[in-house]
Amino acid sequence: MKREIYAAISPLDHRYYAGAPALFERLSEYLSENAYVRYQARVEAALTKVLARRHLCPPEVSVEVEKAASEITPDEVYAEEAKTHHNIRAMVNCLQRRVSEEARPFVHFTATSWDIMDTARALQYRDVTDRVLLPLLYELLGILIEITKREACTPQIGRTHGQHAVPITFGFAMAEYVARLGERLVALKEAAANLRGKMAGAVGAYNAASLFFADPETFEEEVLAELGLSPAMHATQIVAPEYVTDWVHSLLTVMGVLANLGDDLRQLQRTEIAEVGEAFQAGQVGSSTMPHKRNPWNFEHVKSIWKVFAPRIVTLYMDQISEHQRDLTNSASSRFIPEVAAGLADMADHLLRVLRKLVVDRERMAANLHLQKEMIVAEPLYIILASLGHPDAHEAVRRLTLASEKSGRPLYQLAAESEELAPYLARLTPNQLQVLEKPESYTGVAARKAAATAAYWENWLRNITSEREAN
Amino acid sequence: MKREIYAAISPLDHRYYAGAPALFERLSEYLSENAYVRYQARVEAALTKVLARRHLCPPEVSVEVEKAASEITPDEVYAEEAKTHHNIRAMVNCLQRRVSEEARPFVHFTATSWDIMDTARALQYRDVTDRVLLPLLYELLGILIEITKREACTPQIGRTHGQHAVPITFGFAMAEYVARLGERLVALKEAAANLRGKMAGAVGAYNAASLFFADPETFEEEVLAELGLSPAMHATQIVAPEYVTDWVHSLLTVMGVLANLGDDLRQLQRTEIAEVGEAFQAGQVGSSTMPHKRNPWNFEHVKSIWKVFAPRIVTLYMDQISEHQRDLTNSASSRFIPEVAAGLADMADHLLRVLRKLVVDRERMAANLHLQKEMIVAEPLYIILASLGHPDAHEAVRRLTLASEKSGRPLYQLAAESEELAPYLARLTPNQLQVLEKPESYTGVAARKAAATAAYWENWLRNITSEREAN
Amino acid sequence: MKREIYAAISPLDHRYYAGAPALFERLSEYLSENAYVRYQARVEAALTKVLARRHLCPPEVSVEVEKAASEITPDEVYAEEAKTHHNIRAMVNCLQRRVSEEARPFVHFTATSWDIMDTARALQYRDVTDRVLLPLLYELLGILIEITKREACTPQIGRTHGQHAVPITFGFAMAEYVARLGERLVALKEAAANLRGKMAGAVGAYNAASLFFADPETFEEEVLAELGLSPAMHATQIVAPEYVTDWVHSLLTVMGVLANLGDDLRQLQRTEIAEVGEAFQAGQVGSSTMPHKRNPWNFEHVKSIWKVFAPRIVTLYMDQISEHQRDLTNSASSRFIPEVAAGLADMADHLLRVLRKLVVDRERMAANLHLQKEMIVAEPLYIILASLGHPDAHEAVRRLTLASEKSGRPLYQLAAESEELAPYLARLTPNQLQVLEKPESYTGVAARKAAATAAYWENWLRNITSEREAN
Amino acid sequence: MKREIYAAISPLDHRYYAGAPALFERLSEYLSENAYVRYQARVEAALTKVLARRHLCPPEVSVEVEKAASEITPDEVYAEEAKTHHNIRAMVNCLQRRVSEEARPFVHFTATSWDIMDTARALQYRDVTDRVLLPLLYELLGILIEITKREACTPQIGRTHGQHAVPITFGFAMAEYVARLGERLVALKEAAANLRGKMAGAVGAYNAASLFFADPETFEEEVLAELGLSPAMHATQIVAPEYVTDWVHSLLTVMGVLANLGDDLRQLQRTEIAEVGEAFQAGQVGSSTMPHKRNPWNFEHVKSIWKVFAPRIVTLYMDQISEHQRDLTNSASSRFIPEVAAGLADMADHLLRVLRKLVVDRERMAANLHLQKEMIVAEPLYIILASLGHPDAHEAVRRLTLASEKSGRPLYQLAAESEELAPYLARLTPNQLQVLEKPESYTGVAARKAAATAAYWENWLRNITSEREAN
Repeated sequence: MKREIYAAISPLDHRYYAGAPALFERLSEYLSENAYVRYQARVEAALTKVLARRHLCPPEVSVEVEKAASEITPDEVYAEEAKTHHNIRAMVNCLQRRVSEEARPFVHFTATSWDIMDTARALQYRDVTDRVLLPLLYELLGILIEITKREACTPQIGRTHGQHAVPITFGFAMAEYVARLGERLVALKEAAANLRGKMAGAVGAYNAASLFFADPETFEEEVLAELGLSPAMHATQIVAPEYVTDWVHSLLTVMGVLANLGDDLRQLQRTEIAEVGEAFQAGQVGSSTMPHKRNPWNFEHVKSIWKVFAPRIVTLYMDQISEHQRDLTNSASSRFIPEVAAGLADMADHLLRVLRKLVVDRERMAANLHLQKEMIVAEPLYIILASLGHPDAHEAVRRLTLASEKSGRPLYQLAAESEELAPYLARLTPNQLQVLEKPESYTGVAARKAAATAAYWENWLRNITSEREAN
Repeated sequence: MKREIYAAISPLDHRYYAGAPALFERLSEYLSENAYVRYQARVEAALTKVLARRHLCPPEVSVEVEKAASEITPDEVYAEEAKTHHNIRAMVNCLQRRVSEEARPFVHFTATSWDIMDTARALQYRDVTDRVLLPLLYELLGILIEITKREACTPQIGRTHGQHAVPITFGFAMAEYVARLGERLVALKEAAANLRGKMAGAVGAYNAASLFFADPETFEEEVLAELGLSPAMHATQIVAPEYVTDWVHSLLTVMGVLANLGDDLRQLQRTEIAEVGEAFQAGQVGSSTMPHKRNPWNFEHVKSIWKVFAPRIVTLYMDQISEHQRDLTNSASSRFIPEVAAGLADMADHLLRVLRKLVVDRERMAANLHLQKEMIVAEPLYIILASLGHPDAHEAVRRLTLASEKSGRPLYQLAAESEELAPYLARLTPNQLQVLEKPESYTGVAARKAAATAAYWENWLRNITSEREAN
Repeated sequence: MKREIYAAISPLDHRYYAGAPALFERLSEYLSENAYVRYQARVEAALTKVLARRHLCPPEVSVEVEKAASEITPDEVYAEEAKTHHNIRAMVNCLQRRVSEEARPFVHFTATSWDIMDTARALQYRDVTDRVLLPLLYELLGILIEITKREACTPQIGRTHGQHAVPITFGFAMAEYVARLGERLVALKEAAANLRGKMAGAVGAYNAASLFFADPETFEEEVLAELGLSPAMHATQIVAPEYVTDWVHSLLTVMGVLANLGDDLRQLQRTEIAEVGEAFQAGQVGSSTMPHKRNPWNFEHVKSIWKVFAPRIVTLYMDQISEHQRDLTNSASSRFIPEVAAGLADMADHLLRVLRKLVVDRERMAANLHLQKEMIVAEPLYIILASLGHPDAHEAVRRLTLASEKSGRPLYQLAAESEELAPYLARLTPNQLQVLEKPESYTGVAARKAAATAAYWENWLRNITSEREAN
Repeated sequence: MKREIYAAISPLDHRYYAGAPALFERLSEYLSENAYVRYQARVEAALTKVLARRHLCPPEVSVEVEKAASEITPDEVYAEEAKTHHNIRAMVNCLQRRVSEEARPFVHFTATSWDIMDTARALQYRDVTDRVLLPLLYELLGILIEITKREACTPQIGRTHGQHAVPITFGFAMAEYVARLGERLVALKEAAANLRGKMAGAVGAYNAASLFFADPETFEEEVLAELGLSPAMHATQIVAPEYVTDWVHSLLTVMGVLANLGDDLRQLQRTEIAEVGEAFQAGQVGSSTMPHKRNPWNFEHVKSIWKVFAPRIVTLYMDQISEHQRDLTNSASSRFIPEVAAGLADMADHLLRVLRKLVVDRERMAANLHLQKEMIVAEPLYIILASLGHPDAHEAVRRLTLASEKSGRPLYQLAAESEELAPYLARLTPNQLQVLEKPESYTGVAARKAAATAAYWENWLRNITSEREAN
């Protein structure tokens, strides 16, 4: 059944699809209803394969079912469901229709619907993570590493509370995102690898399977191993929900990091700050009425998508609760989980577009840093005085800054002229002196830390890539 | 651009569309991207109409623009946006292309993108409320009223904490939902009627319009009046967000009432309780492995959809915050708002399907009521004793119930035999006596209240309907 | 039972209490457990009063109960609860102990615990709204009105996407918050006035009361009228939850407006923008290591408290669902609702402190406005050109801005020199000309709108105040 | 400063404190403001200790500071803060006042406030997890293991959709919670062990420390090692927020499991089901008006507390976003995090109380299981038929169940009489036959799985306990 995309309700299926059709087609391979049905059929095929291996049915049956599973279509299944009002029964009917009479009983044999559905979902989520999300996020991490390395020594004023604090480097500022994103990707990989399937029957006690096998738990392991999965430690009619909950949490915390990155960069793009910018394409319109405007749309979009998805974890938390061996109140709600993965892909894609051509205005960064350059000296001055035994350095410097503000004269100079402070200043190391005279050099180990962080994650990415190639 | 529906990511656009195509086509008329573009064009047409009326442009221009506005398509606009990277500029370009050179300057004249977009959204939300949501919900309220009237006198045990309490009638239990849904519909109508538009320009100060009009606020009122809207009390680049926030709150609180209704009914459908049921269609499959099961799918679905949407209010709350005359971080997020309306329509639709054929098992209700019939007497007994001056009636009855539990003998009988209590019992009114002897008659004014509630809302519905017909 | 405040778990009970003890003592009068018990006793007293009026008991009984109700303490009630394990039974026992034997049966007569508790909550929430929240918020609104009036004509650059857009006035920017806060206060007043009580018994069907009255609904109305409340349209064991849900929604949307205000002001306090500031007290420390820093702590605090409370609406939405005539799963959760009111009071208090001494740097505002002054001209230029029949004004101006950026020459001058555009410019009105030459005058009707908004809400506040004094 | 507990706003500080004072005093040791100040002082002491070790100051200084740190009180710090308006500066002042003039400069030396605060928080959260939460949860897990073992073979009907499905054992039902809780405790332990501190200065670049050390990162490691912590991979002014976010997620997912357990048990306590119950104390009141009621208060409480806290994760997600090297908008919000830990402790405590005396009514379980005993046979019958080559077993059995329902005759008997099915039945194994004849034996491997799950986690608990004792 085809339909005009702009007739869709969800912006994922009209606007964001239209804006990045290649990406959304790739997502669709794992997250659409098509994908769901196809993955379900794959689980059914794995089941019959193990039945054949255990001689419950002849090997030909397994071949037949595998073929049928690769052929059925969602349209067919939905047409059947319109009659049966049961989606998995419909799929099973469709499979059975495509196989010999002999094979029919072994389709879905001993399984319950949610054996198939939960296992299919685990596969979908694992695959979309491994094949779409992580590759996109590795690329993003790679670009952030490049910027971090390139800007490792670019001085920038550090900002806390939106106020100038002490200097850092822009590479150090970006290293924050390298480190946080890197650590989140480790978490995401783990959460995806920990997704589980089940083949434990209607209430999780292997009731049906135990009519035929003395070791239904091993049988379950074998079926899931065909698909590269492990069984849940416990299942009722459904897999214990925490595996998926953790995976969604990992998606959302990646989103949080990306949203923070986007927010920082759009703030740095403010007219008064203007330290970074998004290169505009020729012909691109900034505003419908203000043709001069260069709005940080992509960064704003990233923040906005985060707002859409962050609260959705609560639905997952609600779905931890299911009565007895399950009620079905997690069914419709779990159908919206794929949207979270799509949302993350969309965020990564928007950031990639703009970070690839991020313009860093180093002169502006330097100019901003110097706006309150005398004041920056306050911190090192206070600490050095304290280390030299000044009994109340904090208060002394606070009073000095007020004087500097009033007079407009350099803090260091005022300190040097102060009878109280001059004796201390005479005892400074050359490094300490330099910091007081050249505030922009007061960046601590920012450059070194930026480089080290970049190197660590570059190496991690390299190992990941080799592993992937080795597989 | 057409696409296989099962390739969509959102279940609203595949599974729930496929399950109720007629409903979703109707929703699509108001909530899709098609609808958004069409409503935007309608706002542009209203703008030019007032320009013509105010002699800024000749009347023919307005006619031209109105015609163009009725003809442009989302496909066309999206193709143009691929070049301009700006959705409203793209739409304006498309309109301009369809009109004479003379007319072109007056398309979008003095407007900013969000004058068009926010106004279009207000229209969409108002219309989908009036034309889809409320009619569905009125029908649902009507069915609940019917059930309430029909079952006004059907005794049922009242349940608190899942424990039998004192009796009510099933009509009274349903009257709860008539009253709560009714009051929510009043709130929803008000919230929809309070949606606002704007035509106040790029930062809300009517900068552009004031180049041509001394009274740009009146100009705004005139444009919006063309569309049946009022201006917001204050706008920046966007309409103050609270009008839409309140509307979404009203949608979600309707959902909460429906979820509670669904939850109650699915609990009453438990095997051990079985007081209500959903009539099954012949041929319908209850479970893929347990063919005898009659699962309360529709009620479970309703609860599940509620879980999807309830947390989404937090996105709206986040969107109350927009920096200065606005940042764009509410743009993507607000594109997901139409889904909430679709979710509510889906819930109402599922409830309608099952409530139309709700089976009430009065015998089972009576049987359940009698399970602890002696214990029910405890409350009236205690209160009557108290009213007759017993100094510690609560404790006396508590001890009596323990004795009744142990001996299995009726509470009333034990009371009658008690030396301490017998003298009090001699002083009962006939009505009081009846309650102690026939616990199922201890329903207070349940039947009367059920009938009165039904009558009140039936009348309200009747007035609403006449109003609508009068319009 | 007394306890060191710093041993408390909730920051409301240690840090924020310690920071504003007078405010928190006032809140405590309505929101603490003390308050809850006191209000419950007041409901019991109202109940007995109506019993006496209806001759169920002698008038002396009502006097006794009223006296007892005014005397019991939470300590006493909690000590009793340790024995009974039931909070209302404990309170009733305490009341009964303080009255004559004759009076005892008429304490809590026909009532269920939640008749008392829900009614007490409605009173507490109504009273804290009327006596603490609204007065604080009226004061805040008053200060915002003052600033709006004072700064109605102070030019400021309008900002969208964090980018300079077209000018407004600072008074206009603040008028946004006057209007949004004003409208929210209207909503909050309504929601508080719509809180409801109940006296409908254990399952809402007036079972017990109907043993003694033919008109228990009227009886309920009379009891509630004693307390200035109306009954819910429907109650089960509890009042339908939507009245309180709406009230909390109104609190949270006020919070959203305040958070936006705080966010705007802290952004305007950025070092590079510095248009507003919070006057610092002598001796105040800005940072433990950077003595020169002036951090926007109060504005940050306001945003942070908003983050704490915004998601809590979801708990309220969850509490819309209660099984049958109620389960108790809303009991603990509803005990946290008073915190929301306290959070709002805290936000208002912090804003009041800083807005009373808000420093507006008009010179800095002017300087910022002029940063891109030539570019501001782009919008009016484009629109005027369009109105004069230029066929593609938007594109023409877009190209001109690029040229202006490159050459650093005024946009208006470049336009005047352009062969294509000069003929159009010759046809400008004087007002239009002025805007192109003096961009800071391009503020639309910002000043007028600011003044009108201030006047509207000043008048509203005046009416509210007279009403309150009249009562 | 002491205060009446019933004057507190938060129920954690009045009602729940009053209900379990011993537990809340223990929580207070880690989660109160007292605890926060004490932990902060401990971090300051660790800092000076390493300064001394590195010869920045004499060893006596470190001893002085350590002593001062063990002595200062929150009252003292708050009194000082009332002057400085800065909490950490206040604490530093208090420490300095207690040490010699020589020692003063080395208090807080090179540190920024959030070095102290974030590190203190990590310690508090780690310690409350290890010393209060995990011990409580281990005890709870232990009790669940006991119940699982005890009831491993107790037949119970499995329930899906609230409908009877196929049998399990009650031990198997409880094994679900053993497994889910066990896995969550593994996650909680990991998350607590992964909490991090910092000593990286005002913007995270070790600016101040690098004035004195060439290796400030190693210096940070040494200070944190004193406290048993590791540094964050990256810090700005604050530790990257994800470590705490993950910890709160782990708390909340434990809560979700407990809420589900509580929900299941309160549903099993329904009057009509009555398979479990909470033993009541003599003298306990069930309901203020219905003295016979035995309400599942503790289970309801557990669900209700879950509703309070589940949405709070969104605040944590919001706090992932902090501008540049941090804004302070996570400050107030992070002060509410300790409440989540207190909430979990409260849930565990309530469950412990009731599970220790959980009454399981095995007769009632058996009776309920037999309610639809003929129908239970449907599943195995269908599957066995399918395995024996019946071409459409599902449909055949579905029709049979309708017949059985109508006639009231056993399904197995009807099957045996059916010409179509009898030949298949002749081929059953003895095990299969038994299941059809004795439906209560159709429990799959429920008993074995229950025992295995119990054994696995019993062993895990044993290892944990030995580890703890070894330390």
